[in-house]
Amino acid sequence: MGKKYVYFFGGGKADGNEKMKELLGGKGANLAEMAGHPDLRLPVPPGFTITTEVCTYYYKHNRKYPQGLKEEVEKALHKVEKIMGRRFGDPLNPLLVSVRSGARRSMPGMMETVLNIGLTEKTIPGLIKQSGGNERFVYDAYRRLLMMYADVVMEKAEGIEPEKEELGIRKQLEKIMEERKKNKGITEDTELNAEDLKELCRLFKVRIKEVLKKDFPDEPHIQLWEAIGAVFASWQGKRAVAYRRIERIPDDWGTAVNVQAMVFGNLDKRSATGVAFTRNPGNGENQFYGEYLINAQGEDVVAGTRTPAPINEYSRSEYNKHLKTLEEEMPLVYKELFRIQKKLEKHYRDMQDIEFTIEKGRLFILQCRIGKRNGLAAVRMAVEMYKEKLITKEMAIARVSPSQLDELLHPIIDPKEELQKKPLAKGLPAGPGGAVGQIVFTAQDAVNWAKEGKKVILVREETNPEDVEGMRAAEAILTARGGMTSHAALVARGWGKCCIVGCGEIEIDYGRKEFSVNGKTLKEGDWLTLNGTKGYVYEGRLAMIDVSAENTLLNEFLKICDKVRKLKIRTNADNPEDAKRARSFGAEGIGLFRTEHMFYGKGSEQPLFLLRKMIVSRTEEERRSALNELFPYFKEDIKKTLLAMEGLPVTIRLLDPPLHEFVPHQKEQIESLARSLNISLEELEKRAMALREANPMMGHRGVRLGITYPEITETQVRAIFTACAELIREGKRVKPEIMIPVVAEVREFLHQVEIVKKVYKEVINEYKIKKIDYLIGTMIEIPRAALLAHKIAEVAEFFSFGTNDLTQMGFGFSRDDMGGFLPEYLKRGILHNDPFQTIDEEGIGELVKMGITRGRKTRPDLKIGICGEHGGDAESVKFCHRVGMDYVSCSPFRVPIAKLAASQAVLEEKIKE
Amino acid sequence: MGKKYVYFFGGGKADGNEKMKELLGGKGANLAEMAGHPDLRLPVPPGFTITTEVCTYYYKHNRKYPQGLKEEVEKALHKVEKIMGRRFGDPLNPLLVSVRSGARRSMPGMMETVLNIGLTEKTIPGLIKQSGGNERFVYDAYRRLLMMYADVVMEKAEGIEPEKEELGIRKQLEKIMEERKKNKGITEDTELNAEDLKELCRLFKVRIKEVLKKDFPDEPHIQLWEAIGAVFASWQGKRAVAYRRIERIPDDWGTAVNVQAMVFGNLDKRSATGVAFTRNPGNGENQFYGEYLINAQGEDVVAGTRTPAPINEYSRSEYNKHLKTLEEEMPLVYKELFRIQKKLEKHYRDMQDIEFTIEKGRLFILQCRIGKRNGLAAVRMAVEMYKEKLITKEMAIARVSPSQLDELLHPIIDPKEELQKKPLAKGLPAGPGGAVGQIVFTAQDAVNWAKEGKKVILVREETNPEDVEGMRAAEAILTARGGMTSHAALVARGWGKCCIVGCGEIEIDYGRKEFSVNGKTLKEGDWLTLNGTKGYVYEGRLAMIDVSAENTLLNEFLKICDKVRKLKIRTNADNPEDAKRARSFGAEGIGLFRTEHMFYGKGSEQPLFLLRKMIVSRTEEERRSALNELFPYFKEDIKKTLLAMEGLPVTIRLLDPPLHEFVPHQKEQIESLARSLNISLEELEKRAMALREANPMMGHRGVRLGITYPEITETQVRAIFTACAELIREGKRVKPEIMIPVVAEVREFLHQVEIVKKVYKEVINEYKIKKIDYLIGTMIEIPRAALLAHKIAEVAEFFSFGTNDLTQMGFGFSRDDMGGFLPEYLKRGILHNDPFQTIDEEGIGELVKMGITRGRKTRPDLKIGICGEHGGDAESVKFCHRVGMDYVSCSPFRVPIAKLAASQAVLEEKIKE
Repeated sequence: MGKKYVYFFGGGKADGNEKMKELLGGKGANLAEMAGHPDLRLPVPPGFTITTEVCTYYYKHNRKYPQGLKEEVEKALHKVEKIMGRRFGDPLNPLLVSVRSGARRSMPGMMETVLNIGLTEKTIPGLIKQSGGNERFVYDAYRRLLMMYADVVMEKAEGIEPEKEELGIRKQLEKIMEERKKNKGITEDTELNAEDLKELCRLFKVRIKEVLKKDFPDEPHIQLWEAIGAVFASWQGKRAVAYRRIERIPDDWGTAVNVQAMVFGNLDKRSATGVAFTRNPGNGENQFYGEYLINAQGEDVVAGTRTPAPINEYSRSEYNKHLKTLEEEMPLVYKELFRIQKKLEKHYRDMQDIEFTIEKGRLFILQCRIGKRNGLAAVRMAVEMYKEKLITKEMAIARVSPSQLDELLHPIIDPKEELQKKPLAKGLPAGPGGAVGQIVFTAQDAVNWAKEGKKVILVREETNPEDVEGMRAAEAILTARGGMTSHAALVARGWGKCCIVGCGEIEIDYGRKEFSVNGKTLKEGDWLTLNGTKGYVYEGRLAMIDVSAENTLLNEFLKICDKVRKLKIRTNADNPEDAKRARSFGAEGIGLFRTEHMFYGKGSEQPLFLLRKMIVSRTEEERRSALNELFPYFKEDIKKTLLAMEGLPVTIRLLDPPLHEFVPHQKEQIESLARSLNISLEELEKRAMALREANPMMGHRGVRLGITYPEITETQVRAIFTACAELIREGKRVKPEIMIPVVAEVREFLHQVEIVKKVYKEVINEYKIKKIDYLIGTMIEIPRAALLAHKIAEVAEFFSFGTNDLTQMGFGFSRDDMGGFLPEYLKRGILHNDPFQTIDEEGIGELVKMGITRGRKTRPDLKIGICGEHGGDAESVKFCHRVGMDYVSCSPFRVPIAKLAASQAVLEEKIKE
Repeated sequence: MGKKYVYFFGGGKADGNEKMKELLGGKGANLAEMAGHPDLRLPVPPGFTITTEVCTYYYKHNRKYPQGLKEEVEKALHKVEKIMGRRFGDPLNPLLVSVRSGARRSMPGMMETVLNIGLTEKTIPGLIKQSGGNERFVYDAYRRLLMMYADVVMEKAEGIEPEKEELGIRKQLEKIMEERKKNKGITEDTELNAEDLKELCRLFKVRIKEVLKKDFPDEPHIQLWEAIGAVFASWQGKRAVAYRRIERIPDDWGTAVNVQAMVFGNLDKRSATGVAFTRNPGNGENQFYGEYLINAQGEDVVAGTRTPAPINEYSRSEYNKHLKTLEEEMPLVYKELFRIQKKLEKHYRDMQDIEFTIEKGRLFILQCRIGKRNGLAAVRMAVEMYKEKLITKEMAIARVSPSQLDELLHPIIDPKEELQKKPLAKGLPAGPGGAVGQIVFTAQDAVNWAKEGKKVILVREETNPEDVEGMRAAEAILTARGGMTSHAALVARGWGKCCIVGCGEIEIDYGRKEFSVNGKTLKEGDWLTLNGTKGYVYEGRLAMIDVSAENTLLNEFLKICDKVRKLKIRTNADNPEDAKRARSFGAEGIGLFRTEHMFYGKGSEQPLFLLRKMIVSRTEEERRSALNELFPYFKEDIKKTLLAMEGLPVTIRLLDPPLHEFVPHQKEQIESLARSLNISLEELEKRAMALREANPMMGHRGVRLGITYPEITETQVRAIFTACAELIREGKRVKPEIMIPVVAEVREFLHQVEIVKKVYKEVINEYKIKKIDYLIGTMIEIPRAALLAHKIAEVAEFFSFGTNDLTQMGFGFSRDDMGGFLPEYLKRGILHNDPFQTIDEEGIGELVKMGITRGRKTRPDLKIGICGEHGGDAESVKFCHRVGMDYVSCSPFRVPIAKLAASQAVLEEKIKE
């Protein structure tokens, strides 16, 4: 027996099935599955698939078909005729077919389709009869066939390339049609009547002959075979070849060709067309949901000129409540459709998006595919389907994307509204989610307006610790300068607040309380909408969607994730409140407590003042005196945070930023500082100047401060151990992990370890306790530290990768300054991602891997985590899993995202195995 | 036969020789060599060495000596007695000996020595007779023996540790002596007479008994054996053990003990002591040179209380011209000494530093070792000895250290004067050499004063391109701010000018034309001396040494280096003048031509103005217009430079620094710039502000500018190719190498390559030439570029490591800001070197190695060099040789240093093999 080239489907049977995608292409395999699988046997319009092997044969044998193909096609076509009760080319009751491509992998729009094959001058009367005398419908179908056929089969497939695009046959035919409409003084195709269309068909044929030197073949079988040939030819079309290059699809896969009976939802009032979802894609409820139009084609639903009706009561809305449901209109058809959708969801184990057509009361399923959904729906469906045992936990986890989960964590701008609007300006997306509010320009105004119940957006050049009250009061923050690690960005992310920074296009005039951007001027009180996830600024008020209250659902979903993931998820928290919130999100400890961050935020005037005093001190004596005053604040904050995380590890990082960051800017604060130090304003200014640096990011900070001013380290460490000692005496369990930042050389670390050990002994002696279980480790954030990890691990008990700085120094990209070139880099594809959002695996990732491998070589049980912004980015979290970290740490609001990504990483690993 | 434990030397014979250092220790082997080698047979005071094996045995056998040792020592001692004509313990004509340690490797001051062994109450009269009745001399010798013996033998070797240092026996005896002097109202030991010393000896013995509960052993043989034991014991002394830990000397090496006859240069007028050199250590001339003192001990020469006399006419100077030479005083002894020094230099094939003593007309050679020398002497001796065929070329190269060679390149402060002075302040050593001048505070003053023939030092907060004229006029530059890559540092190094930057201790008051430092105030016109090699600032005028005119000698030496080295040496030159100068120093091409540096220096007002115009342009149109005006300047400079280096490769780096560096600061310049752009001052200020960056070193610079403003790359490349095309038409050979800076990702590089190729085609078509032999490559200065070198090498034809930036980003050290912590780091040993001076092999070096290995894996013939400051640092140049670079590039004045280091690297490699 020879090879089988043609696979039939329809009438409850199919030669193929879903698994035969290589042979039948994606579309063909799916049609076969729907038509023939014993659980389904759906009423798909019958048809057949010519295999990809024929395509390969065709190209190998100089565009000839294999022997026996003709006969197989004939045979299959007869079966279709039988099922449809129509015959191909029959003048009285003609069968029309569509001819479509269908490759192994979807190549949307890259190959050709011809509809209405089989329509000729001879079969037109038969189709008119089938349509109950609808001449306009039939000539419109014929007109479409002429256009498509001339373009796809007679021109493109023959390799004819017009000199200019407007000389192509399709453009020429369109022009004829345009002229007709112009002459009649109409604008819409639908306004053309049967006579117009009939005349157009005549004109089309004349022009086709003129241009292509050939007659349109008014013979069904010629049409069929030429159309099949044209689809095969389109596999080697320019666009398809280019697409395959990009997507790396091998040329020798070939395409299949699907020939399928045409069915029409616009034949009469017993015909209809529609789209339905097995569950509500807007909220995930397990309810059949959809809409339909009587006597219409799919295009009509898309065009939006008629309002579709709901398929059932559940699908009723504001807009369609006056219309009859399909259930009411055609109860039997609805019942069948309902039964089918149940089958489909069960069979495919996911929510399905179903296209259906009803021709004269007969239901056909044209297509089904996995339905798109929003975040809330994705999470609800994953949780409920898992509970229903429709899917496994792994499937539930794979069903939700990190960005979908993110929709449950912040209010977002309604995507439908956002699609219609052009951003006013773009900045760096520093705090995710959306926000709407009125513009204010000072922190004080933000506080005052908010007290009056107004929603405000604080717009500043950049922010500093003095603005914190106003930032808290605002819905969102927008700054003209500063990068992803600027004060505004750090503070906003910690609070989970919407924030855009570095929006250089806006020019603020504080005096006039207005800003201008691209020729527009916005004033105080004007409304603004921000998309902090993308960094887009919109003028006016856009509608918001807020599903962030769905906590139970979120937690149910995260529990499923927890069953799979291996990475621990910690949080970056700088105060007891953040720690509590993060714990409620399921954080398993703190991966980054920034000692200096206690100085941002509510009620922080006194410690901030003392910190400043310490910073501008000139002698060790001055500095120690300020530190002694600071000590109780340090200690209390750490104690409360340890308590909030009782029993879980808390990584406390010693002072990190360059001191100059804390120097005050407001006159009265400068004066009070000078007074308290008993120095002149001039002297204070001098001291502040001396702290300025050319490149502070690579300046006197982190461990470098701890070495030049060991008393700073000493005071911080004493605060940590004293807090621990007091808690231990109160019967609490504490697990502090002391982290030294900005280490480049093991001897820097050793220097600090000496201080830690000394203070440790002093505190446990003073408090008469046996011991404190603490670890001492370091950030790996300097490239050299990653290179020399084996040496550092001789002393360090844990590593926490600071991939923010590692990316800055590895790329030589200052995060605060890269606004000048990053957009250009992304536009030109020089970088595919912002490396501060998603870790650059190729370069920075290699440094991380090197650090892990070398560190664990010296100390196999080295505890390894990450505490940069990447800890909250899904792709980066997956990378952390793959390279064998123990935990990631991210801001409280990213904990759920990190949990999801960590569990998905496990699944992806399994697939690879 | 048993093992031999004692090796005799003296009387023209020796049991051992120089090669037996493991057995006899360094000192013992050298004494044997001098005494016994057939070419030498020098009159060293006879003695014998007890081997290191005895030490090992001693410690293995619970501090017992091996059998037969006693007898061997006795036998050797008899030989010594015979040669000296004195007997150990003989009351009439006693022999005294010294007992000294001597390990395989020198451990200076770590172990013990006892002199005058054999002096007792009984032998004192004999020694008085030998000294011609000099009682004072004898009791002083006895007093010294008592002190040394009590301390070393009776206290330390017995492991007695006094509770406090002042309770140690030596301190107690010293106190007795102090009291004696106080009672007599005198201050110097030499003022004590024989009676005093006799009494002191008595008191010493009493105190020794009191404290150590033992009598001083007034018996020669007991003294000898106890002293030998004490020296062995000192091998396990605290200091020695600690020293071995640090120097990694194995404990089981053990020490030898040398027992040698004492000879005295202070016995009478026929006795003398002196030091001589086989060639002049001050200038290297091949002349016997030295000084001596009649009737004196070595200490007397050191003490400087008497002026030593010249040994011969050649050695006469200002200070000693009135004194009789040794040649005149003791012609026969001088003749013998002269003969000996000739032998010694020939034998050791290097200039020797010889200590000699004449006892009653009898010459003894106490020690000879390789003589210390200054830079000029080192180079002259190396060249002349090589010519004399005394040494090979390899030996000549090894004889000169890079810092010695450096003395021939710049004037330096006379080291003798500098030793006496305390620096007024310290800064970063930005330009080597020394300079003296009067303080001025403005560039204009520098120019004016210099015109009047005054030598000035320009003192500024920091410099900018507007100061260049004044910098050129000054002898040296001193700035309060800025780092090793600041404007002042870069410009000064390019000129080989003395410069100190970042001297934060000085506080300048421009208004009063003065600066204050540590409480002192210096005014305009005051004299200042700078040591730019160390970064030291001195008040007043210090004497200078200038041998930088010895060009012939330098070139002769470099020719020897050229025979050995493999690394090519290129130069960093930014204009035709520098290129010419560097070529005269022997540079083999330019490794770094910084396109932007043409804007510094003479007659640069117009191009600098145009550059500024380009920089503050807002639109591509404005920018292109400024670039077109700049084009002829670019082209001319490049053309002249290519011509100066005709036939040699010239690497031209495209625009590198952040644009903000070029924004003008002076009011009139700002105004004229605004006028020419037809914009308001306010607008100009705004544009300049917009260019400011938080961390410019990691900001919008290098290739990032070339991508965002491709027209900048285009203009520069067109200037390069046009210059080449014109030269080719004139029949010249050019080898341009276009270098793209700050690349982190291969796609950045590719983007620029496209522009280069496009412009190349345009230029060769326009000039109708066949081709230009050019290369296109990149700096590897960003850590990520080193990691991804294999990808970059797919496109780049050469790499030039920019280790300045690689160090900045690898360490996260901003060179401009590290002044805040680097001194502390060096002091505490956290870093052993400034990593910007000498490459950090462990960390940054690994990145370099990685870059080379990965780059050559893709492209085996990849040309690799270095163009950072390290290219002129000897240790770093050796590293570059070891890792297989093709060339190093350094500032013109470092080319000789680099050549030397490159040739030494070859020698070091051979030794390793």
